[in-house]
Amino acid sequence: MTGDVVGKSVVRKDALEKVLGRAMYTDDFLIPDLLVGRLVHSPHAHARVKKVHKEKALALDGVLAVLCYDDVPHIPYPSAGHPYSLDPSHRDVADRLIFTDVARYVGDVVAGVVAEDELTARRAAALVEVDYEELPFVLNPKEAMAEGAPRLHEGFPRNILASFGNDYGDTLGTLKTAHYCVEDTYSTNIVQHAQMENQTATAHVASDGRIVITSSTQIPHIVRRVVGQALDRPWGDVQVIKPYLGGGFGNKQDVIAEPIVAAMTLAVGGRPVRLTYDREEVFVDTRTRHGIEIAFHTCLDENHKLLATHVEAISNNGSYASHGHSIIMAATSKFRPLYHWQAFRIEPKTVYTNLPTAGAMRGYGAPQMTFALECHMDDLARRFKMDPVEFRMKNLVGLGYEDPVTHNRVKSFGIPECIRRGKEAIGWDEKRATYAHQTGCRRKGVGMALFSYGSGTYPAGLEISGARMSLHQDGSLTLMVGATEIGQGADTVFAQMAAQTVGLSYDKVRVRSTQDTDIAPFDTGAYASRQTYVVGFAIHEAATIIQKKICKVAARLTGLPPEELETREDYVIHRGTKEVLMPIADAALEAYYHREFAEPITAEVSTNTRVNAFSYGATFCEIETDLRTGKIEILDILNLHDCGTVINPQTAEGQVFGGMSMGIGQALTEDLKFSPKDGHCLNPNLLDYKIGTAMDMPPMRCLFVEAKDPSSPYGQKSLGEPPTLSPAPAIRNALLHATGVAMNDLPLSQQRVFEAFQAAGILMEKEN
Amino acid sequence: MTGDVVGKSVVRKDALEKVLGRAMYTDDFLIPDLLVGRLVHSPHAHARVKKVHKEKALALDGVLAVLCYDDVPHIPYPSAGHPYSLDPSHRDVADRLIFTDVARYVGDVVAGVVAEDELTARRAAALVEVDYEELPFVLNPKEAMAEGAPRLHEGFPRNILASFGNDYGDTLGTLKTAHYCVEDTYSTNIVQHAQMENQTATAHVASDGRIVITSSTQIPHIVRRVVGQALDRPWGDVQVIKPYLGGGFGNKQDVIAEPIVAAMTLAVGGRPVRLTYDREEVFVDTRTRHGIEIAFHTCLDENHKLLATHVEAISNNGSYASHGHSIIMAATSKFRPLYHWQAFRIEPKTVYTNLPTAGAMRGYGAPQMTFALECHMDDLARRFKMDPVEFRMKNLVGLGYEDPVTHNRVKSFGIPECIRRGKEAIGWDEKRATYAHQTGCRRKGVGMALFSYGSGTYPAGLEISGARMSLHQDGSLTLMVGATEIGQGADTVFAQMAAQTVGLSYDKVRVRSTQDTDIAPFDTGAYASRQTYVVGFAIHEAATIIQKKICKVAARLTGLPPEELETREDYVIHRGTKEVLMPIADAALEAYYHREFAEPITAEVSTNTRVNAFSYGATFCEIETDLRTGKIEILDILNLHDCGTVINPQTAEGQVFGGMSMGIGQALTEDLKFSPKDGHCLNPNLLDYKIGTAMDMPPMRCLFVEAKDPSSPYGQKSLGEPPTLSPAPAIRNALLHATGVAMNDLPLSQQRVFEAFQAAGILMEKEN
Repeated sequence: MTGDVVGKSVVRKDALEKVLGRAMYTDDFLIPDLLVGRLVHSPHAHARVKKVHKEKALALDGVLAVLCYDDVPHIPYPSAGHPYSLDPSHRDVADRLIFTDVARYVGDVVAGVVAEDELTARRAAALVEVDYEELPFVLNPKEAMAEGAPRLHEGFPRNILASFGNDYGDTLGTLKTAHYCVEDTYSTNIVQHAQMENQTATAHVASDGRIVITSSTQIPHIVRRVVGQALDRPWGDVQVIKPYLGGGFGNKQDVIAEPIVAAMTLAVGGRPVRLTYDREEVFVDTRTRHGIEIAFHTCLDENHKLLATHVEAISNNGSYASHGHSIIMAATSKFRPLYHWQAFRIEPKTVYTNLPTAGAMRGYGAPQMTFALECHMDDLARRFKMDPVEFRMKNLVGLGYEDPVTHNRVKSFGIPECIRRGKEAIGWDEKRATYAHQTGCRRKGVGMALFSYGSGTYPAGLEISGARMSLHQDGSLTLMVGATEIGQGADTVFAQMAAQTVGLSYDKVRVRSTQDTDIAPFDTGAYASRQTYVVGFAIHEAATIIQKKICKVAARLTGLPPEELETREDYVIHRGTKEVLMPIADAALEAYYHREFAEPITAEVSTNTRVNAFSYGATFCEIETDLRTGKIEILDILNLHDCGTVINPQTAEGQVFGGMSMGIGQALTEDLKFSPKDGHCLNPNLLDYKIGTAMDMPPMRCLFVEAKDPSSPYGQKSLGEPPTLSPAPAIRNALLHATGVAMNDLPLSQQRVFEAFQAAGILMEKEN
Repeated sequence: MTGDVVGKSVVRKDALEKVLGRAMYTDDFLIPDLLVGRLVHSPHAHARVKKVHKEKALALDGVLAVLCYDDVPHIPYPSAGHPYSLDPSHRDVADRLIFTDVARYVGDVVAGVVAEDELTARRAAALVEVDYEELPFVLNPKEAMAEGAPRLHEGFPRNILASFGNDYGDTLGTLKTAHYCVEDTYSTNIVQHAQMENQTATAHVASDGRIVITSSTQIPHIVRRVVGQALDRPWGDVQVIKPYLGGGFGNKQDVIAEPIVAAMTLAVGGRPVRLTYDREEVFVDTRTRHGIEIAFHTCLDENHKLLATHVEAISNNGSYASHGHSIIMAATSKFRPLYHWQAFRIEPKTVYTNLPTAGAMRGYGAPQMTFALECHMDDLARRFKMDPVEFRMKNLVGLGYEDPVTHNRVKSFGIPECIRRGKEAIGWDEKRATYAHQTGCRRKGVGMALFSYGSGTYPAGLEISGARMSLHQDGSLTLMVGATEIGQGADTVFAQMAAQTVGLSYDKVRVRSTQDTDIAPFDTGAYASRQTYVVGFAIHEAATIIQKKICKVAARLTGLPPEELETREDYVIHRGTKEVLMPIADAALEAYYHREFAEPITAEVSTNTRVNAFSYGATFCEIETDLRTGKIEILDILNLHDCGTVINPQTAEGQVFGGMSMGIGQALTEDLKFSPKDGHCLNPNLLDYKIGTAMDMPPMRCLFVEAKDPSSPYGQKSLGEPPTLSPAPAIRNALLHATGVAMNDLPLSQQRVFEAFQAAGILMEKEN
């Protein structure tokens, strides 16, 4: 189903607007008499709020309101960006209040101020005095699970937020009897999205009493619902508008600023209030990526075929649920359709601690799981002195494999081709051999890692998408979706798919990029790498309706049967002879203005996608390290993706390179650190938290293996998150290859690699 | 089909926003770096533009562009707000250019400037020097038709823009043989809408090259098309946004400012430009109401039954076509389903003259025609010494009457009831008798007039309407239409109709009042008193779909057959037992989130209304005049309307009182005057042009006779324009009753009444 538009590197729909500085982001809207909100944060990791003294702040000229726990509804609400569920047991954990009466991490939001300008708001926030009763705190999930540890929330024994696992086959029995049995433990670092645009939202109360929120969010329709829940209002009383976004990466798949700013506007008679988080707040008061410790206990037969694995994972969730109950479940589900297991037992525990809240972040637990799994695979291969690729190949699932839990079936499988091309591109066999016998202080290695991922959340989640199209009189078309452009290029691929199916050129399709929950089709938003896959169904269905309507009008005009007509590149043509019959514009005009048959050509559909497709891929990389310094230099790194049909190669590449840089950051430099003494974040800023700049990035390559999935209308599968999954283990495995040192804990910072070399006895003296 | 919501005086949807000053009108949008456009006008009634000297204006600091004929496409375009027609012979006359090379009235727009602020723009406009070659001009349509008169446009012999008439039966033959034959001639004044908000539009070029216009217009979808035509662009390349409007009355059913401001933004690299007409410009550079001279040559049988009439009308169209070719045709069509004629011959001529352009204005020619017709009826009755009501009753059509030209049938007919109640309310019989024998200088009289009107334009025009609805999770609903709220209360009655049919309370329905041509359903806009009637079909159809979908979901939840369910006041109830089964919100929630059947409840429909309904009504009034001064005082004035079902009595009253005040203004004080010497307007401002203020208005009453029309889903018919039609002839007929003086020319200004009394020999001396 690829063709004239799908598969081409057309220019992004938002390219010009963005490079010209005209694209409107949340903070770009000029609003007269806009007030400014600021937050008051707890200095304690765990403390009861005894009293909030508002007087000094309120006495400041230009301060309109000071709000705390006493001033907001006491209805716990969930913050995770998931669709609502009719089944109470399937709903997200509701443990948030707009302002808390118990601070659960250093930075927790205990009060807010509203003032006429930012300086006044900052001064007022500093003048709010809070009496706390300090409570014991715990930062480490294992300690948090211990008897007698401080408790963060009622109803969660041992601070365990969730422990949804899976048990398939006789794992423990197999482990007892297998030929080989291997145990390895891995752990990952807490990192942060650090998306370009901080959280920001503006709210006012409309004349009809409804709350109108403009927010930088990935999930406007979910924000509507959660704000309604938090403020105990009918959800339709909240209107959420999403303009352009400067990135999200999952950090805006959470409802964070919106209930607060909504409460703020309600406190000042509905006047518009803007609440913008500064970078320090983004680091601690939004979301982070879970640090997870993952232990594999794996057994194999005498031919090195995997048999069973017992996975135990402990996820450090921080202070509030957010997505924590769901992430480890997703991660331990998404790795399964890669290697063939006869049995598996997965026992994850997500644990509350007095750290900032972890939440959704690109990969949704899968980067952590993939790190552990793919290190484990290399470690197994190494134990058996096998080539890591050969070992993996032996154990891969294949086409037709059915996940025993979800019953999702592998309907396309590009992994073997990814491996073939990856090996060739990196010079695998030659370098594996060459680098086996290095001397000297500089050592090279090649490593690789595979991954599997889903396209959306089915069957765990509900996958509703909506698409609406109007064909204009000139044959151009406007597409509205509820799915969100958040910088990833969604609008562009949506337009391509629509153009392809309607039979229009790309330029004739425009996309309404702003979602307004009152009028946008319903869709739960940008997450789970779902949009290209799931929304593709809705677009294809709506576009097919449009196309058929065009042919019907053209049939009336030509006297030909509609089934003999097709559309292509803005024209109606004869299916058999390919004769050009008329521009689509002529049919459109007829549809608008025929005195008897006039009916402008439109379509609106909602699809419930009850299928899923596995995306696959690999990273191959070559690194060089220095045994004197522990520094790792990536000489070459290549991601290969089987994402089904590549709708737009250029934007797909952009996704891959961005994801790779996040993976490299997690692997080497990024690490959010907390003082063990009091739990405060040590590096909540872009100076101390080390994100690689463009200058720091190694040369990156990417290749696509388009194993078109038969389940989706364009053969498309997911690509958004996958690029982040495999770089870290590939780098770690290359280091293992270069030095024989297996580092099981992320990040591979220079300091830690240095220490590992030291421990392994391979550290060399610096030359002077 | 009236019920819980339809027929109630619910509060207007926009009431609070407007009284709180929060409603956003075109000029309320803050736009950074907004430029200001100003126009350069011709001082000559007719002149060729030889050269536009831009240098001095361009030399002024802050001036970005000076534009004239040389700088714009030379593609004549139409300005009338009608749907496009696939039939070239049915299209509006295209005689406009953005900037003209021949000025055709004093004020014609020959150039424009764009500057950084308004003062600079005004200064720059004054610095533009234009060399003209003066041409002979003509202001009077009879003179304009004479041999050798100056010609305004090529291709229009004798300056006749249009002369579409009707000829039914043997009018001339009947006139020759009838018992009575009477000739009367009437004429009406040129008046102006003087809507509160002047014409204003803002335009910029989006990054994708499309022109985005925010405009105070009744017809956003038509503006899109006409700007496309004027600038020779695909229509989809123009996006038009219509926010709240401060009135239109037909003056914004014309495309006036938009092509100019679009050309201006194109001239400054797409930067935003705002072009706001000042009041003086609104008077001469937008539109006026046609002054029309109408001659009736009517014959009757010996029983005073009307037989045939030969109507000749000459309409002074001013300088450009606008709606001129259509208005007289509409007016001579709409008066027909009132009295029964065996034959009629209608010969109108619409004539170009060197005056400002006449166009659409509330009533669209019908006020003029009704004035002539209803004066004529009184004059006939007077000739036969009959009571004017009795005479009319004798000649009325009745239910089932079919217009011989349009074949529209009278399906509801409230006129007899209007007459009965009007007579009673005004004390007709008693006062007709009492005032027959007055002496003294102060004389009273009672008069009345009837009218008939259509609901929309079918079959002359295409009546496409669109409605889109989304039911939200809480059972609230958003309605989007392409039809426009322009201050008349359209959104409110739309919401009422939607609420009624879906089964929701009024507060649960909100209306997206802003139309954006990219995403709003297609609809041609607010004119021809069409919206409540025509859009009602679309709303009813969409709401029925929503209602059925709700019942389908509720049926699934209850296990009952859907046909046993109905909806009412936010609940699903059992049709038989009336038992409350669930809130609609529960069905809505289920529709959003059911894991298998999820499909949010939405509907989008486009309707092509191929039917019409006649609205009827009457004015009864009592006046007192002073034979010493000629001043007319209205003691009591009452409009009665058969507008079918009254959707909202309070907003309907508002429409009626507003329309009556316009009718009274046209009758007594309003009169746009032009210097016969050079054609310039003598009173283009609200000081010299006399619109009655609230203080000037007499006590007004209105009554509704709800003859529900079987053609429409709620029994509704038109009400927007009708209130304007009958006050003027009723006042004139009351003056005739009071004094015996028949004034056939509007307005009945004090000066002219004084002169008429003088001519009639009844003027009395002032007492000193």
